[in-house]
Amino acid sequence: MNFCNQCGAQVDFRVPPGDHLPRYICDSCGTIHYQNPRLIVGCVPDYQGKILLCRRAIEPRRGFWTVPAGFMENGETLQQAAARETYEEALARVEIGSLLTVAHVLHAQQVHVFFRATLQEPEFGAGIESLEAMLVDPKDIPWADIAFPSTDYTLKRYLEDRAAGRENHYFTELDRRLPR
Amino acid sequence: MNFCNQCGAQVDFRVPPGDHLPRYICDSCGTIHYQNPRLIVGCVPDYQGKILLCRRAIEPRRGFWTVPAGFMENGETLQQAAARETYEEALARVEIGSLLTVAHVLHAQQVHVFFRATLQEPEFGAGIESLEAMLVDPKDIPWADIAFPSTDYTLKRYLEDRAAGRENHYFTELDRRLPR
Repeated sequence: MNFCNQCGAQVDFRVPPGDHLPRYICDSCGTIHYQNPRLIVGCVPDYQGKILLCRRAIEPRRGFWTVPAGFMENGETLQQAAARETYEEALARVEIGSLLTVAHVLHAQQVHVFFRATLQEPEFGAGIESLEAMLVDPKDIPWADIAFPSTDYTLKRYLEDRAAGRENHYFTELDRRLPR
Repeated sequence: MNFCNQCGAQVDFRVPPGDHLPRYICDSCGTIHYQNPRLIVGCVPDYQGKILLCRRAIEPRRGFWTVPAGFMENGETLQQAAARETYEEALARVEIGSLLTVAHVLHAQQVHVFFRATLQEPEFGAGIESLEAMLVDPKDIPWADIAFPSTDYTLKRYLEDRAAGRENHYFTELDRRLPR
């Protein structure tokens, strides 16, 4: 960040009085520009035991497989965001179920939240951000070509829980920041 | 938002190609400035059946009571954020427990996340954003002077669950937006 998005003046980066972290500060209009983690929300769509995966048409990780997920928008719930992303990326309508995983992706300043979901009909396709979509049997999941660690973590917890007949939720931390 | 925080040019507000919502767009450097919900994270600190509350020294809702909570920072987990806020607002060290509530605060473009927590020692005080802190018996909670609907919802779910001997988690929507 170089400029104040309110008044257009150059910003400084320092700790404001009474704060404990450096922030982008506009000394012209007084605005402090806080930066906070963003929410990525998705789901694991299940249709009669098969999982709906999408192959990414965009970077990062173009060509790799993931479950439907994306940035949460203002004005929607986590569940609505998960269902919307599933429609946008895989042209599939899902019923969102229980909370499955929360991954703190510290290097990306993101929190990833995934839910269980049910696909009512085997209707799906490639949305504009996907190269293709497919329903896969768990034994055929392309583990070596999964796009993100949070996707991998989420699919594994989902399958373990389903095999055990439970619906727990799980937290994890993913941190690729350089050592301090 | 009036100016691009990257290059300082004026921004336009329109739907980018391939998108479905209007965004702040810089036609000078090409940056699209997405705006997403922010995470507010807190906990319900319990000490031998009593709850730790803080009275707010800052707006909004100065003078009203809440449980410790605040904006999640980059580089921390939800649980770390909840513990940090408890120390900052109530000078108390807590052990964060299970997920309690998620409130989608749609008019504020925020997601509030609360955990159960345990205060190991009855040591607390007023942090710089609090007028005072107190340990209260549930029957003495000042319900008419609770700062936010998400705090009220969270305290009620906590007490119901504790009385029932369970630790569920709950989602809710709070929406004070004007009718469309």
